[in-house]
Amino acid sequence: MIKKKPFFIFNPKSYLLRKETLELSKVANDLANKYKDIIDIYVTSPNIYLKELVDCFKYIKVSAQHIDQIELGRGMGRVVPETLKDIGVEATFLNHAEHQQSISDLSRSVKRAKQLGIITIVCADSIDEARSIATFNPDIILCEPTELIGTGKVSDESYINKTNSIIRKANKDVLIMQAAGISSAKDVYRTILMGADGTGCTSGIVKADNPKKMLKDMVESLVKAVKDRN
Amino acid sequence: MIKKKPFFIFNPKSYLLRKETLELSKVANDLANKYKDIIDIYVTSPNIYLKELVDCFKYIKVSAQHIDQIELGRGMGRVVPETLKDIGVEATFLNHAEHQQSISDLSRSVKRAKQLGIITIVCADSIDEARSIATFNPDIILCEPTELIGTGKVSDESYINKTNSIIRKANKDVLIMQAAGISSAKDVYRTILMGADGTGCTSGIVKADNPKKMLKDMVESLVKAVKDRN
Amino acid sequence: MIKKKPFFIFNPKSYLLRKETLELSKVANDLANKYKDIIDIYVTSPNIYLKELVDCFKYIKVSAQHIDQIELGRGMGRVVPETLKDIGVEATFLNHAEHQQSISDLSRSVKRAKQLGIITIVCADSIDEARSIATFNPDIILCEPTELIGTGKVSDESYINKTNSIIRKANKDVLIMQAAGISSAKDVYRTILMGADGTGCTSGIVKADNPKKMLKDMVESLVKAVKDRN
Amino acid sequence: MIKKKPFFIFNPKSYLLRKETLELSKVANDLANKYKDIIDIYVTSPNIYLKELVDCFKYIKVSAQHIDQIELGRGMGRVVPETLKDIGVEATFLNHAEHQQSISDLSRSVKRAKQLGIITIVCADSIDEARSIATFNPDIILCEPTELIGTGKVSDESYINKTNSIIRKANKDVLIMQAAGISSAKDVYRTILMGADGTGCTSGIVKADNPKKMLKDMVESLVKAVKDRN
Repeated sequence: MIKKKPFFIFNPKSYLLRKETLELSKVANDLANKYKDIIDIYVTSPNIYLKELVDCFKYIKVSAQHIDQIELGRGMGRVVPETLKDIGVEATFLNHAEHQQSISDLSRSVKRAKQLGIITIVCADSIDEARSIATFNPDIILCEPTELIGTGKVSDESYINKTNSIIRKANKDVLIMQAAGISSAKDVYRTILMGADGTGCTSGIVKADNPKKMLKDMVESLVKAVKDRN
Repeated sequence: MIKKKPFFIFNPKSYLLRKETLELSKVANDLANKYKDIIDIYVTSPNIYLKELVDCFKYIKVSAQHIDQIELGRGMGRVVPETLKDIGVEATFLNHAEHQQSISDLSRSVKRAKQLGIITIVCADSIDEARSIATFNPDIILCEPTELIGTGKVSDESYINKTNSIIRKANKDVLIMQAAGISSAKDVYRTILMGADGTGCTSGIVKADNPKKMLKDMVESLVKAVKDRN
Repeated sequence: MIKKKPFFIFNPKSYLLRKETLELSKVANDLANKYKDIIDIYVTSPNIYLKELVDCFKYIKVSAQHIDQIELGRGMGRVVPETLKDIGVEATFLNHAEHQQSISDLSRSVKRAKQLGIITIVCADSIDEARSIATFNPDIILCEPTELIGTGKVSDESYINKTNSIIRKANKDVLIMQAAGISSAKDVYRTILMGADGTGCTSGIVKADNPKKMLKDMVESLVKAVKDRN
Repeated sequence: MIKKKPFFIFNPKSYLLRKETLELSKVANDLANKYKDIIDIYVTSPNIYLKELVDCFKYIKVSAQHIDQIELGRGMGRVVPETLKDIGVEATFLNHAEHQQSISDLSRSVKRAKQLGIITIVCADSIDEARSIATFNPDIILCEPTELIGTGKVSDESYINKTNSIIRKANKDVLIMQAAGISSAKDVYRTILMGADGTGCTSGIVKADNPKKMLKDMVESLVKAVKDRN
């Protein structure tokens, strides 16, 4: 399965207008093409840019940032999962700390996405949460303690080791993403060497002096880590 | 001001996939072109289709269904008002019964949209709410008692007269939209004759045997009502 | 451990004013006294009546209906777990379909309640949810598909068997409550014989012609089921 | 009307356990008795303590911190307005920054409270919000910019003057409470002299070295201000 490769997720959240979104996605797409045999690159986007990303960039996996548990029908300003599939979106985040979901809603969202063939990246805020989410059998679990988001502080070694071990034990099919406070290529390397399947970044890239270079450096650091690990 | 013309809002909510969205928007756009001296036509859409509607159809006013009160920055699956402006969206619904906002959030959303030049269509669920919302000075107030949404039952004459009168008295600059249960061209005609500045429809169109014809009939009924009223 | 006995939960939700709350709690308390060696009886209540129930009735386990994840400090109209403990409340519902919690919030709520020695009754809306919640190691999991709440329709045999089996397998320490649509003493009997550790009722009691008698009949049916099962 | 007297609201939010709640409420009650011809004193409380406050202290106006828009019936951990009335609660906060309400919900809450004879204290976060809330005709509007809550910083003179003037103009029947950052008896005096009908305090009292003395000093400062103003 293609999604089982190591991966990097560029998640610009709501930081960027259209022009910067396209420019950085192009960089990501070129890297995704270059390293397509080794890694996957995901780019998330507010819904407003999703269609254009899907149409312009064929090597990245374009990802939504949230879906709602509604069917085609009523609902104003909500995200019907079918509409993502309809335009070619391949993945979605779920339960991000900035868009939390009830456990009932999350359970149904993972199931609905699976039915539609949409890859699920589910955020877990603690060890207990990661263990619980693993039972839903999502494609990727992102372990990121809320209190570290946007701080540039990485999770400490013991937290990473512990969540890695607990998720592997609970569900060996799920990919593990560790991404708290990633702010340099070195952080990326270290995280992969510690056993994560993937990592990613928001503010470390969009607030960098040279976002394109930082994105490139991080992805290349991931590729190097994957090679060194094997 | 262009927005002061009588208007029709086609609000397909979350009923449609991309193909139907484009097909019905094309019908709306042709009508908007034909009657551009007499009325305005708005088409709302989930964010995922907004860019394409803006790019393809120059005569309709493309409208979002909700905005969030966040700045460019953090936020997953949220709608930053600047991003709508950035791609050319002209209007947005606010406080729809299917996406209610706190009074604090609504107050700021109207202000933020105004700063960006985005037309605001604010939903009011009761007479008390309409009076309160009028103080925010939005462009359009939609009077639609929640219990009638999607029922095909129109507001009774006294409700329409009363909300019209209270909003006119509270704020003579705001346009009044009456749209509860509009399900035929006749409903459109009657509503305008009773004094509304505009009307609109969701299920009456998307669930019609022939949605394109229903949309056309309703718009032409609006045009006739406007002429007859003068 | 005392809480490991079979149990009945009378959950009047928000149906009752003070007088009826006290009257029915008295019935529950007399039954709890009479059968104290065989079963536990819980009575839930809006916070406004909790102190009086704790003070007046020593045999029932008085239970809150929700707690919030806040510390003593700011918060208006929220429920600080410490305040429940402070007045002697013994248990709390969590994640009820009528007060859903994010997975992060639920995880912390169970942990906080445990630290304070408050028994946790966590609601699960589906099999997937029950499996996930079992990882939090709550005291009781209530299996109740949302669509059956208040309908008087009981979960079918296969649903009960399946959730029982999955929870037992995931966590043998948790007590299982099956309570969807319990509306007669017979339903209580059947549910316990099918393997649940406990059951309970809302509308079947408060809307009965004779609520006190119905409560008594249900509890005695539970006692009989427990005896017959052994 | 009794509620038209100048007033002080001691709002301990969720800071206190039962013992401290009763001790400080006793101080408030003694002051309320002493100055009953001149001012009203309100004490808010989490629901868990309301009944005891009502039963023990006859001179203070016991106030809830929030109500929900539900009828007697379903609802777990919600606050049915009737239950407050049933036990003798006289007032309630609405739309506090720490428990915001949709405009629809707020509109109905004010109306429901009025029907039940419960005094409404509605929080407004901005000048626009205050103007809008005045149309609901609540008993008291609390003007408190969210960003100043708990900071010990008072609203500046121009903000107080402007909100006072806008509310008086919009609705001469509503009482005006200015309470941002009140942390000393001097702040109380100044606020009343600037034209507010009442004021109140949370952290300035509960975090004071001597909370009882601070409460007493503030109330006596209010009494002095009222006398000096006349």
